[in-house]
Amino acid sequence: MWEIISKLYPICRSITGNGTRETLRIIGQHIPLDIHEVPSGTKVFDWTVPQEWNIKDAFIKNAQGQRIVDFAQSNLHVMSYSIPFEGKLSLDELKSHLFTLPDHPDWIPYRTSYYKEDWGFCLTHHQLDEMSDPEYEVSVESSLMQGHLSYGECFIPGQTEDEILVSCHVCHPSLCNDNLSGIAVSVSLARQMSQSRKYSYRFLFIPGTIGSITWLALNEKQTPRIKHGVVITGVGDRGPFTYKKTRRGDAEIDRAFSHVLKHSEDSSQVIDFQPYGYDERQFCSPGFNLPVGCVMRTPFGQYPEYHTSADNLDFVQMESLVDSFRKCAEVLNLLEDNAVYVNQNPKCEPQLGKRGLYQSTGGESHKRFDQRALLWVLNLSDGTHDLLDIAERSNYDFETIKDAANLLVKNDLLKPVAPHDGNSRPVCD
Amino acid sequence: MWEIISKLYPICRSITGNGTRETLRIIGQHIPLDIHEVPSGTKVFDWTVPQEWNIKDAFIKNAQGQRIVDFAQSNLHVMSYSIPFEGKLSLDELKSHLFTLPDHPDWIPYRTSYYKEDWGFCLTHHQLDEMSDPEYEVSVESSLMQGHLSYGECFIPGQTEDEILVSCHVCHPSLCNDNLSGIAVSVSLARQMSQSRKYSYRFLFIPGTIGSITWLALNEKQTPRIKHGVVITGVGDRGPFTYKKTRRGDAEIDRAFSHVLKHSEDSSQVIDFQPYGYDERQFCSPGFNLPVGCVMRTPFGQYPEYHTSADNLDFVQMESLVDSFRKCAEVLNLLEDNAVYVNQNPKCEPQLGKRGLYQSTGGESHKRFDQRALLWVLNLSDGTHDLLDIAERSNYDFETIKDAANLLVKNDLLKPVAPHDGNSRPVCD
Amino acid sequence: MWEIISKLYPICRSITGNGTRETLRIIGQHIPLDIHEVPSGTKVFDWTVPQEWNIKDAFIKNAQGQRIVDFAQSNLHVMSYSIPFEGKLSLDELKSHLFTLPDHPDWIPYRTSYYKEDWGFCLTHHQLDEMSDPEYEVSVESSLMQGHLSYGECFIPGQTEDEILVSCHVCHPSLCNDNLSGIAVSVSLARQMSQSRKYSYRFLFIPGTIGSITWLALNEKQTPRIKHGVVITGVGDRGPFTYKKTRRGDAEIDRAFSHVLKHSEDSSQVIDFQPYGYDERQFCSPGFNLPVGCVMRTPFGQYPEYHTSADNLDFVQMESLVDSFRKCAEVLNLLEDNAVYVNQNPKCEPQLGKRGLYQSTGGESHKRFDQRALLWVLNLSDGTHDLLDIAERSNYDFETIKDAANLLVKNDLLKPVAPHDGNSRPVCD
Repeated sequence: MWEIISKLYPICRSITGNGTRETLRIIGQHIPLDIHEVPSGTKVFDWTVPQEWNIKDAFIKNAQGQRIVDFAQSNLHVMSYSIPFEGKLSLDELKSHLFTLPDHPDWIPYRTSYYKEDWGFCLTHHQLDEMSDPEYEVSVESSLMQGHLSYGECFIPGQTEDEILVSCHVCHPSLCNDNLSGIAVSVSLARQMSQSRKYSYRFLFIPGTIGSITWLALNEKQTPRIKHGVVITGVGDRGPFTYKKTRRGDAEIDRAFSHVLKHSEDSSQVIDFQPYGYDERQFCSPGFNLPVGCVMRTPFGQYPEYHTSADNLDFVQMESLVDSFRKCAEVLNLLEDNAVYVNQNPKCEPQLGKRGLYQSTGGESHKRFDQRALLWVLNLSDGTHDLLDIAERSNYDFETIKDAANLLVKNDLLKPVAPHDGNSRPVCD
Repeated sequence: MWEIISKLYPICRSITGNGTRETLRIIGQHIPLDIHEVPSGTKVFDWTVPQEWNIKDAFIKNAQGQRIVDFAQSNLHVMSYSIPFEGKLSLDELKSHLFTLPDHPDWIPYRTSYYKEDWGFCLTHHQLDEMSDPEYEVSVESSLMQGHLSYGECFIPGQTEDEILVSCHVCHPSLCNDNLSGIAVSVSLARQMSQSRKYSYRFLFIPGTIGSITWLALNEKQTPRIKHGVVITGVGDRGPFTYKKTRRGDAEIDRAFSHVLKHSEDSSQVIDFQPYGYDERQFCSPGFNLPVGCVMRTPFGQYPEYHTSADNLDFVQMESLVDSFRKCAEVLNLLEDNAVYVNQNPKCEPQLGKRGLYQSTGGESHKRFDQRALLWVLNLSDGTHDLLDIAERSNYDFETIKDAANLLVKNDLLKPVAPHDGNSRPVCD
Repeated sequence: MWEIISKLYPICRSITGNGTRETLRIIGQHIPLDIHEVPSGTKVFDWTVPQEWNIKDAFIKNAQGQRIVDFAQSNLHVMSYSIPFEGKLSLDELKSHLFTLPDHPDWIPYRTSYYKEDWGFCLTHHQLDEMSDPEYEVSVESSLMQGHLSYGECFIPGQTEDEILVSCHVCHPSLCNDNLSGIAVSVSLARQMSQSRKYSYRFLFIPGTIGSITWLALNEKQTPRIKHGVVITGVGDRGPFTYKKTRRGDAEIDRAFSHVLKHSEDSSQVIDFQPYGYDERQFCSPGFNLPVGCVMRTPFGQYPEYHTSADNLDFVQMESLVDSFRKCAEVLNLLEDNAVYVNQNPKCEPQLGKRGLYQSTGGESHKRFDQRALLWVLNLSDGTHDLLDIAERSNYDFETIKDAANLLVKNDLLKPVAPHDGNSRPVCD
């Protein structure tokens, strides 16, 4: 994960352009990736794919001709989607194009102007303080013209057409937690899920907002196949793991993350859906209402480094990335294994003893735990409870309940409600 | 409000009679009031409109011929509906007709005997203590005969036939909180709602119990028009604002009062329905089950001044009256504005920026609050949530959500589920 | 209750055999009991009725020929269902057949081996410590052969065919709380309910697990008549009364026990259903899902004396037995009296005064409590709430609500939803 992050960090990404294209190319070195190019001007619901933005160079020179703000030093210095500009401005004129963070005078803020034509520079407040020349030379050597919006898609077919969607954004320049951490964890999950499984998997690497809107517009008919989904965002900072529920609030993936986090010893939180955040805004818009949640560590906007140059390689912790990956993988595995079973001997308990599923010498005060798990699965497998329900109600972890179910299936005491062949699978939330 | 209270305070009201008639006449000076006269003997469900009671004078004279208890001094001295009586009684005989409050020896209690023919005097315990003559002369110059039950009705037609009912009782003599406070706030609300609104408004000024039973019996067919209702009782004491829920417990008016009180900084309480209290007992009887709640400050019977001469002009606070009025008016306005809308661009978010509804420079860590309110309204306006739901779920106050909805309607992004013309309106609780 | 317990205590019971037969004979001296004998080999769902086990004598003799472990001293010394055995074993060989409790070196454990042919001895850990001879003589004079499983059934017909089931197990040897306490309370309840009532009553005295499975297999068609049921187990220890809910979790009997325990001043607990415990496991298996709960004091396995010789006559408290009986009887009486009524005057309150149900002099600040109970019953008797609902919602105890309902029935203000004749009765949970 660290390799991909450090390779992607210096690239100047935006919602379109060659930086994003290069990012997708690098991701494609790790997982099979279809790269889509959607022409500028394409109507996507209420939006239009914007012109493609690219930038070569940009600077502010002082009276001595020194580059005091230089795109080459940090791609954050230029407001994303700045239109080309060449000229000399008085300090006062210039100031309306400058953005700083007075509270964090060493940090460069991150600013964009996707849908209003403008140009601007972001700099540290210290840099601004030192500017005292009457006039400055400004150059933004960018281009904004007909082109494409690029996004990547990694589709891993499974035994059914039912899909699990994993989405992350690839539109932020040198920001590490807010962008690269999600990419890294998504890539690792795509590798993990690469062998054929019950579900098909679709990993999206898209520019924020316009990317998910574009994907939804172009793939609208396919969205009913999405049975579960998750947007992966800032998963590398030191904060506790956070899961934000889907708009539905009680989707299977909501229950799955809640279960996994409850049974983890780490501190974590589950928060309710809100219609702001990342691309779950679009997946959970009322016209789609897809069961797509969002994972992060510290929620966006709640850490000062958010959208500043301080969200750098030092800010992201390998330990947090690994933990985020593990928890997501655990949930995906849980969804793979979750199913509704039916007790084949529903009238009274089956005789576990004659099948070797019961200790032979009765009368001990403490039964083996897994035997109780067997009894829970048998008792609740009446066609209305999935294994996750049973785990929740019995207070066992999912793994134990799954093992119990497998043992019972092996002994012909349990059968899945419907075979997972083709298109159909039982819906239980 | 104070003017009407002080004018009404001295009048001897009961469930029928000229005191109540005079009360309605004074109310009619402030708002347009239809006065109804229902003949004694009219069958109203299980009840019968009683004979009309009037009283001219009443006293107890001691051996020296002095009036030691005198109706002219306080109309509480005579038990309401006392039948005419003239005679001399020994102190012992008399005592069975006397009521005092030993725990509050300076206060006169309030007693009635509407449905059992009897006479009685209420006096302070000090007065009783001083009675030591062997015989007393008693006179009750009252009349109980065929007549009418009087009540007042102020109907303000709105744009629809759907009604909001506001009811208060006008049957208590010189009791100030328990009677006059409710009248004063109801009159102010009727004035406030006098311009045409979405709902029609019906304000009832009726004697307690028999009045609401009579009104319901005479207007049974019309009751389905009542979409929301509230009984206003003791709203002038120093206690916190109290809302008692309807029998349904989750009616729109229950949610509205809960919301307004939650967002108020004042201490207040919402209590569950109970089948005792005021006329909500009748409106919420199982055969009607109307969505009628009840507002008060300290619940009846929980303050010692209740039903005594201490519930006087000093007991009622102008500040409490004004606050009660304001909270009720806020709820009525909320009900006027509450509606179900449908997002006209339900697939993904609409592009707020091109409509001037989004700040143009992205990337700031804290969005403007009202923009979030816009997103909440868009996200939840799927035809199943009214604005009050959205306010509750987003934790915004109703006003902010309403403003957001109006802005979205203006931008053609939102439409009400059904136009509020004629009889029909959507029911969302 | 004590008489029956002390008489039954010395008998060596198991899931079959003469000890159980003798136990049923003694129970039959107190209540009318049908004794059923089900042949070994009978298929009962997934199980088979086992061979009948009987035992005459068993011992371990040391080198000096002394009986150092002797069945005659405690029937717990022999593992239940031990097959016949005769022979000399080295101490090491013998040890694999010996069971002790090192943590409670003075207690004899209780062990069974119903479904795996084996023999064994249970002894105190002190006894084991003293065994140092190289060889021991072992004798188990038992028989395991075709025979019968015996159980007792006391059926008390009521006015309807709807049944209340009370079940306890009779398969444990000299264990007092875990076996005899439940038998004693069940016998007392059967005597208490012996006069004709609304419900029919069925009391089962059966061996655990195989007994309930056998009964359910033989009486499957009849099970829909069981409207409420309770398994009575360890109800004699010093612990607080515990009610374990049915698998449904909201059955009428769950609500009834919760209500009775809430209104009792004693400490008590209501716990959720789990698929382990006593015969409620079988009654609540998904193919039956009968509304059968379970009562106990300290839950099984949570007291150290459980399944040891320390669960003896000293461990069981008369006070606990009496309290357990009283609470169960109160619940049975509640179920007898619980019903759905319909207010015959649903529009507005009926005039209670003219029926003598209202104090005639109004205006007092505190109404009589039972009058409020009348109002609650009238207000909620709309055909959807049973009396238990009304008691819960009004926070009155069931008795007060029942008395109020009876008074209203007497005054023609209330009628039961359907007469309780024949087979049909309203279901309200």
